Amino acid sequence: MLDFFFSPSSIAVIGASRDPDKLGYAVLSNLKEGNFPGTIYPINPKADEILGLKAYPSVAEIPGPVDLAVVVIPYPFVPAVLEECGKKGVPGAVVISAGFREAGREGLERERELIEIAKRHGIRLIGPNCLGVIDTDTPLNATFAAGMPPGGPIAFMSQSGALGTAVLDMALAGRIGFSRFVSLGNKADVDEVALLESWEDDPSSRVILIYVEGVSDGQYFMEVAHRVTRKKPVVAVKSGVTQAGSRAVSSHTGSLAGSEAAYHAAFRQAGVIRAESMQHLFDYARAFAYQPLPAGERIAIVTNAGGPGILATDALEHAGLRLARLKPETIEALMADLPGAASAANPVDVLGDALADRYGHALKLVLEDPGVDGCIVIVTPQAMTQIEETAHVVGRTSQQFDKPVLGCFMGEARIAAGVNVLRQYNVPNYSFPELAASALAAMVAYKDERDRPSYEPTHFEVDQDAVREVFAKARGEGRVSIGEAEARAILEAYNFPIPPSQLASTPEQAVEIAEQMGYPVALKVASPDILHKTDVGGVKLHVNSANDVRDAFDLIVYRANRYVPGARVWGCMVQKMVPPGREVLIGMSRDPQFGPLVAFGLGGIYVEALKDVVFRVAPFSEQEAREMIGEIRAYPLLEGVRGEPPADHAAMVDTLCRISQLVIDFPEIVELDINPLMVFEEGRGAIALDMRLVLH
Amino acid sequence: MLDFFFSPSSIAVIGASRDPDKLGYAVLSNLKEGNFPGTIYPINPKADEILGLKAYPSVAEIPGPVDLAVVVIPYPFVPAVLEECGKKGVPGAVVISAGFREAGREGLERERELIEIAKRHGIRLIGPNCLGVIDTDTPLNATFAAGMPPGGPIAFMSQSGALGTAVLDMALAGRIGFSRFVSLGNKADVDEVALLESWEDDPSSRVILIYVEGVSDGQYFMEVAHRVTRKKPVVAVKSGVTQAGSRAVSSHTGSLAGSEAAYHAAFRQAGVIRAESMQHLFDYARAFAYQPLPAGERIAIVTNAGGPGILATDALEHAGLRLARLKPETIEALMADLPGAASAANPVDVLGDALADRYGHALKLVLEDPGVDGCIVIVTPQAMTQIEETAHVVGRTSQQFDKPVLGCFMGEARIAAGVNVLRQYNVPNYSFPELAASALAAMVAYKDERDRPSYEPTHFEVDQDAVREVFAKARGEGRVSIGEAEARAILEAYNFPIPPSQLASTPEQAVEIAEQMGYPVALKVASPDILHKTDVGGVKLHVNSANDVRDAFDLIVYRANRYVPGARVWGCMVQKMVPPGREVLIGMSRDPQFGPLVAFGLGGIYVEALKDVVFRVAPFSEQEAREMIGEIRAYPLLEGVRGEPPADHAAMVDTLCRISQLVIDFPEIVELDINPLMVFEEGRGAIALDMRLVLH
Repeated sequence: MLDFFFSPSSIAVIGASRDPDKLGYAVLSNLKEGNFPGTIYPINPKADEILGLKAYPSVAEIPGPVDLAVVVIPYPFVPAVLEECGKKGVPGAVVISAGFREAGREGLERERELIEIAKRHGIRLIGPNCLGVIDTDTPLNATFAAGMPPGGPIAFMSQSGALGTAVLDMALAGRIGFSRFVSLGNKADVDEVALLESWEDDPSSRVILIYVEGVSDGQYFMEVAHRVTRKKPVVAVKSGVTQAGSRAVSSHTGSLAGSEAAYHAAFRQAGVIRAESMQHLFDYARAFAYQPLPAGERIAIVTNAGGPGILATDALEHAGLRLARLKPETIEALMADLPGAASAANPVDVLGDALADRYGHALKLVLEDPGVDGCIVIVTPQAMTQIEETAHVVGRTSQQFDKPVLGCFMGEARIAAGVNVLRQYNVPNYSFPELAASALAAMVAYKDERDRPSYEPTHFEVDQDAVREVFAKARGEGRVSIGEAEARAILEAYNFPIPPSQLASTPEQAVEIAEQMGYPVALKVASPDILHKTDVGGVKLHVNSANDVRDAFDLIVYRANRYVPGARVWGCMVQKMVPPGREVLIGMSRDPQFGPLVAFGLGGIYVEALKDVVFRVAPFSEQEAREMIGEIRAYPLLEGVRGEPPADHAAMVDTLCRISQLVIDFPEIVELDINPLMVFEEGRGAIALDMRLVLH
Repeated sequence: MLDFFFSPSSIAVIGASRDPDKLGYAVLSNLKEGNFPGTIYPINPKADEILGLKAYPSVAEIPGPVDLAVVVIPYPFVPAVLEECGKKGVPGAVVISAGFREAGREGLERERELIEIAKRHGIRLIGPNCLGVIDTDTPLNATFAAGMPPGGPIAFMSQSGALGTAVLDMALAGRIGFSRFVSLGNKADVDEVALLESWEDDPSSRVILIYVEGVSDGQYFMEVAHRVTRKKPVVAVKSGVTQAGSRAVSSHTGSLAGSEAAYHAAFRQAGVIRAESMQHLFDYARAFAYQPLPAGERIAIVTNAGGPGILATDALEHAGLRLARLKPETIEALMADLPGAASAANPVDVLGDALADRYGHALKLVLEDPGVDGCIVIVTPQAMTQIEETAHVVGRTSQQFDKPVLGCFMGEARIAAGVNVLRQYNVPNYSFPELAASALAAMVAYKDERDRPSYEPTHFEVDQDAVREVFAKARGEGRVSIGEAEARAILEAYNFPIPPSQLASTPEQAVEIAEQMGYPVALKVASPDILHKTDVGGVKLHVNSANDVRDAFDLIVYRANRYVPGARVWGCMVQKMVPPGREVLIGMSRDPQFGPLVAFGLGGIYVEALKDVVFRVAPFSEQEAREMIGEIRAYPLLEGVRGEPPADHAAMVDTLCRISQLVIDFPEIVELDINPLMVFEEGRGAIALDMRLVLH
């Protein structure tokens, strides 16, 4: 897919120039210097020949077919040439030219025109306002960046072209190699999703990196990313994370950044690894690109220095990994081989005077241990250290095992030679143990995620018609908020457990209902115009007798009419009092990028004051609902503290999944709260005590 | 202080060797190659001359005085030569030789012998088992490391010699420069504290870096570090942080790592900046070494690329800093100067085609704005970017202002030239915006900490004798735990607010006391042998009548005798029931390194299940107590949620400070809990409901 962008047979460079200061020169020169094997057509009405290539006045006049057009002319002329490309039947265009959406209102209009032309002719478009495209296999360098990066198994896409120049400059220094590189620019057409699909089965790309400020179609992104991450790791830096950062985004590309919580949930659910910084992005990428995935989280450390060994141990634990426990046989074999003062337990300290062969023996023994899933090899440049020889030994040994080995050759002046040697063996090096540990942690996290079976969301039998009826009635009355009596009908339609409850229009009817139910009962004002019932004194709990029911009814109705003049007051809901349990909140709001974002937290102060809440994008499976529950900080309270039995997890999972289905079935629900869901002990279920709901 | 280590006039190298594979050769050669200006005496009984220097068979035979001995002979001979140095009157010795405490039991004995000899002769000792000492001013390179690092305003001390070699190797590549470098080894004598004191007023050292696995005298360390950090920043990496890491420490140097919580509290109280990784250590160091401190937290960003600008914005906010809000005048001036598409609001986007002069103008305007405390300059290597010229402009402009300017020239191949230019102007560069932001955050944190007045702990008038009496009685009875009745006496002696309470030995007496107090009351078993009263059913709350008091008394005493056979049961404490409030826990335990570690948290589940607790080393001031309270995650609950008034902060602060004084006054208290301290609304105080206390 989108192959014409990466391995075209012929390219037209529209705006090719002889002036070395022009981007049109840089692009043409990069294509040529990058040894593009196909035909290059410089398009320039004022030239016959540029850089030794025959030039044409326009695309139309090119004799043969053109697979790709690279457009580097001033923005006013772009629509016309795109139209021309369409007529010529060019399948793909990279529009480098700026002056579109990023340039304000008029630019946005121009961009819409581009999109219209491209759609009409079936042209796929990268950009506008981008740096271009690189494929190191073809090889193709259709950018105006300085030079061609070395090849490697990393595919990189960036919403920021300038960041791309920095990344390519890093690559030029030999730190990293790319299979594909795409600067996405304004994403008028080709976006992250299109490239994920294009690279999904690309054998040259072992890992996909994304720098993204905002995705357009969140749910589609999740669907594709979830499929791709089953095949290869996708690591992303999402910027515009903080409030101030989001402001910077909107002044930058005009893309609407989804809320941080939504991105966090969506990336996680899609299996996308989130790097917290650009440095982590490349640290992770090098590990994924060059080393096998670890089978588990048990890591060994081989070091010639105690201090860095401790740092690595700290870092492993901090990253959520475990120090491998070596088998007695391994320890014995190590002890037979190492000097007496060495430490044969993990971290394996081969001592400061270790030569290359001692490292080799120790590393081999450690990697042979079935209890070791991966290894960090630390080398400090001590007096006798054989830096290059050790790198060779480490490299060779690592290739005998299907376990990840990361280097941590620490230093720079003398150490550099060793790092270069490691690179020959595809062993990535990290300057400090902390960086190696977090790269390994990313690998373990990816492996776990990838190997987890994909669960489908549970499908419940429900009564959608009943819900439709409620919504229709509300709409008919011009309301968007749904009162409690109506919410009950929805809860019942979706089989949520709710307390026995009935509407009473008179005090006498309320007494009758209460007597039938048995005391204690609660009375709540029934009005479609009062959402926050407690605020107007519209709730009475623990009502214990006929007299009290009568009093409560009258008081509630009086207050409702007084505090919300004009409200339609239907009477009171009489509800069986529910025994105490743990109060949980389940809510939903619509994220502009990802849609229905379901929230879970402990009710009351935990959600409100302590912001202890987790999110998932609906729909999600039972397993994901269970994970959500386990992720809140206050989870120990649901497990039970001080000998208390655990809360009924199955009931919480069930409620979350039914909410997931409800908000998917009815996209017109924009907000929803079940607060509280009263959860009883394991096996005793839960009851939704109150629900509020807002329609579009 | 300790000047003979850094600028001696004469050095004896004991164990100097002609064999280039020997450490004794490396040390001598480093001294010579490092251009040590004083006299070097190689000591080797088998040589007349080494490396062109006249050799002596022993220190005794050196004609003139010797300021420093560097010992690189096998461990069995070290004590004898140290003895000889003592007789010769050598004031300082660096013992590089290994084979001491790190080598087990016998080694520890040898090390004790060294210490004894050094003490007897008044020799100060660095090591044993270390890499040596460097002073780039003198210059002096008394290590066996490869080469002399470049000079610079950073003083570095490391408990790990190997880590030192890696750091020096980084320095050799030009990334960083040192004033002093000390490998501390086993710290038989000179330790972190001694070097802090030695470098406290050293004008060549603007910042002190420490790699430490454990400190010996925690309270003394805090005292000295607190004094030094008022003068210059001290940045530390403390390893052995996690459980697994701590295990690695004890197998490594045998130093007993203090608990993480204690180090965290102690470093903070002493103003020591904790770097979470080695990378941060050097990132922070370069900022402190070369740039002025920011006056505040308002940071500007000047960038030629939107994406990295957003990353920087995110990173600033993440690091707790603020994006500066530019003055309208600044924005106007920027707009007059920048092209129309540029962004004149912070982050200031000078656009991808910005040449050096545009950067210069923008940076100058931004730094002139009084609302800007510091600036990050981001440069991506785009087509027209003048990397070196921009670096010159940034460097020159930065020198006109007393505000920190950090570079973020992103990339490597083309960018390197710019980074080298920046170095000439003392502008440190960071490869990614996140790293620059965290360095700035460290500067702001240091500045705030340094400028904060030093508060003295409050001194309360108390009755120490009363406490002594209680302890004497307990000791007399062979007890270490203090029961509630006795704890009351202590609380009273230190003027903690406690509820009216009296011991009743009979049910009738209990009734009498209760009638006097007024109901409701609580009854609690009074026994020095029962610490956890609720566990044996020894507490009855809300007792409301004479009959209930009688029943409660009998039941409690019956149960106490039954569940704790042999316990001395004195009867029951009858206590006035306290109105409900917010329950807080204040505790203390003794940390082996730092002594009395006081804990604060919300009572019940918050401390137990949610581990929401903060620590400080006593003694601390009112201000520190107030900070403690604000640091718990559940702090909003103390501020008051849902319209609730705040809890009485002054009462909590007072209790914390009195506890601080109590545990300092009585070092024999090894554990103490006030749980709960019932805290009422602001202005209404707090009451200590229960206290348990364990003596040494």
